[in-house]
Amino acid sequence: MALYVQKFGGTSVGSIERIKAVAEKVKGYRAEGHDVVVVVSAMSGETNRLIALAHEINEEPTPREMDMLVSTGEQVTIALLSMTLNTLGCPAVSYTGPQVSITTDSSHTKARIKQIDDQKIRNDLNEGRVVVVAGFQGADENGNITTLGRGGSDTTGVALAAALKADECQIFTDVDGVYTTDPRVCSKAKRLETITVEEMLELASLGSKVLQIRSVEFAGKYNVPLRVLSSFDDQGPGTLIVAEEADAMEDPLISGIAFTANEAKLTVLNAPDLPGVASKILGPIGAANIEVDMIVQNVAPDGKTTDFTFTVSRGDYKKARAVLEGVVAELGSGEISGDNAIAKVSLVGVGMRSHAGVASRMFQVLSDEGINIRMVSTSEIKISVVIDEKFMELAVRALHTAFGLDKEEE
Amino acid sequence: MALYVQKFGGTSVGSIERIKAVAEKVKGYRAEGHDVVVVVSAMSGETNRLIALAHEINEEPTPREMDMLVSTGEQVTIALLSMTLNTLGCPAVSYTGPQVSITTDSSHTKARIKQIDDQKIRNDLNEGRVVVVAGFQGADENGNITTLGRGGSDTTGVALAAALKADECQIFTDVDGVYTTDPRVCSKAKRLETITVEEMLELASLGSKVLQIRSVEFAGKYNVPLRVLSSFDDQGPGTLIVAEEADAMEDPLISGIAFTANEAKLTVLNAPDLPGVASKILGPIGAANIEVDMIVQNVAPDGKTTDFTFTVSRGDYKKARAVLEGVVAELGSGEISGDNAIAKVSLVGVGMRSHAGVASRMFQVLSDEGINIRMVSTSEIKISVVIDEKFMELAVRALHTAFGLDKEEE
Repeated sequence: MALYVQKFGGTSVGSIERIKAVAEKVKGYRAEGHDVVVVVSAMSGETNRLIALAHEINEEPTPREMDMLVSTGEQVTIALLSMTLNTLGCPAVSYTGPQVSITTDSSHTKARIKQIDDQKIRNDLNEGRVVVVAGFQGADENGNITTLGRGGSDTTGVALAAALKADECQIFTDVDGVYTTDPRVCSKAKRLETITVEEMLELASLGSKVLQIRSVEFAGKYNVPLRVLSSFDDQGPGTLIVAEEADAMEDPLISGIAFTANEAKLTVLNAPDLPGVASKILGPIGAANIEVDMIVQNVAPDGKTTDFTFTVSRGDYKKARAVLEGVVAELGSGEISGDNAIAKVSLVGVGMRSHAGVASRMFQVLSDEGINIRMVSTSEIKISVVIDEKFMELAVRALHTAFGLDKEEE
Repeated sequence: MALYVQKFGGTSVGSIERIKAVAEKVKGYRAEGHDVVVVVSAMSGETNRLIALAHEINEEPTPREMDMLVSTGEQVTIALLSMTLNTLGCPAVSYTGPQVSITTDSSHTKARIKQIDDQKIRNDLNEGRVVVVAGFQGADENGNITTLGRGGSDTTGVALAAALKADECQIFTDVDGVYTTDPRVCSKAKRLETITVEEMLELASLGSKVLQIRSVEFAGKYNVPLRVLSSFDDQGPGTLIVAEEADAMEDPLISGIAFTANEAKLTVLNAPDLPGVASKILGPIGAANIEVDMIVQNVAPDGKTTDFTFTVSRGDYKKARAVLEGVVAELGSGEISGDNAIAKVSLVGVGMRSHAGVASRMFQVLSDEGINIRMVSTSEIKISVVIDEKFMELAVRALHTAFGLDKEEE
């Protein structure tokens, strides 16, 4: 018999009807003899309703009071879910974050968990109760209520699983697992049985929105087996995110393909190739709160000028361009060019580490499709290319087939 | 400079606009140099919204989870009020009941306060902050969230005032004080400057809905000066509820007139006058969860039968009548008569203690108006009569004038 920490997000508990469905699911696990700790978010829409109330008062309300306010959202859900479980004859008890001593630092609205005292939860589990814990919240050392920021309920789930040494932390979502790529773009995408933490991190940061990066990092750090699965009717075992593949030699080269069209590219042409030019360009961009993703620098054959290219979120394109105008004026030379109709496509896989030739094969596949590569960036388990946005879907489908990711025909 | 505990109910904090008005009022007291602790209820409608959610799950939800659920209502208000005070440049900090160690017993949904640790609040007051505390809630010794039941926020206010030895506990409501009687029925009703705890208790239990009985009892027990005043624009000093009038000899005979039409009367005629007949009649009524108010028993001239009369809430009339049918069948004799078009009118005043003749004067006044008295009941500081409902307003106005309660003509 196992101990599971099960996390249900806002959509999964968005109505009394949905809460009843969650309760039935939890009861099913109990009936199989497992111990269950449930972590829930606020009912969908509730957090936004509370934030809107606060913004009627002040666009930047006191952070401590903001946490006091929004933490009520999860508290409502834990009470409703526990009542429902009790009504179904499945004994349950609810706790807020502070009640089970989820101790955080004092960074209101974005606190980090420092410690969890699991004794209270263990006592209830020993007495046969389901324990329902409010996600997203804790208390600092002075007892002030804190919240963990966006996606914080996933983090609560993983942290509790780590503290309780749970067999699995199961994140129930509106998808039935992690896919080789987005099935809406590539109909041959298939669900992965397992994926490593590293791969998941690369996929998450590249735009796959299944899990919050922070909870995956946390799971990796504390060796918590993390499973993503559907909160709807039984749709299979989902995807297990593991610290490391058992036998890396058997790994497929590539685990998944991530992509995003939310990109824009900016180039400073013919900038003087002097020490510090990169920071002269990127310093003001950073100061303007614009995040930079990929960076490529080429030196001209004469060795005196350089072409400096980087990508930003599409929403920051205009702002970044305006900042660059000032930079070029200060440098005294260079021209600006840009393109906001680009996409980034990335191959991710730990198998890449021990196999050469993934990059060249990727380039060949794209070339065969007539797709021009505009930028390249690599890491140990990832290769990303920037291409024209109009080729994005074509590139994903071609690479998906070429790297053997297509599901078998039924 | 004084220390005030100020309590604002659900209507007073029913919208962001109203919360801003409360914040301005509190800021005004701070500007005069007073220390202020604010106790607030849930925004009006919020508690009922939460209860409705729970009732979608179960008509009798787990009491512990019910407390977990509804206690969020006050938590939302304290956060919003504190943000508003901070926005107005008036430093404030909010606390839930458990956070300021309002320790209660474990009777969920109707807990009683056992202890309050005032240290945290004192520290904040010393540092110049307004302290905003959630009414209606606390935690038992195991840290489970409890609520105090209806009107619990008044109780929180009085309990905090007692713990902090505040100069006054001020209950802000939608009326501007306690009146000699309901101004909607008697236009000559006037606001009382002071009233004793005992009188207030009699008025409250007789249907004046200004304050919850429990908070008045609490104030009496712990000698907390309690003031009722309007939460709207400055409408005078309200009414101060004191432990005992300074000089009882100067007391007016009567402080106020309470009345209620929510009454029904039931009589068992010609019941056998045997020991235990009263409990044979009232036992089954109590067992049916019907509360009995006044009781009168007359013995017939032959000494063998008795007429037994009592009053109940009008809503319980039919149910009580059905119970009596069974009682009469068991007794083997007696007939049932009843009347649910009656009203109760009561004179209340500590001055009554030292003055005879209040009752006879009351009966004379009613007689002069042609009003027949159907039942009478008395206590040390109260005389109640039951009359036909249609005469209720007439009786209140006539008694109000006769006992010198009318306000002076302006």
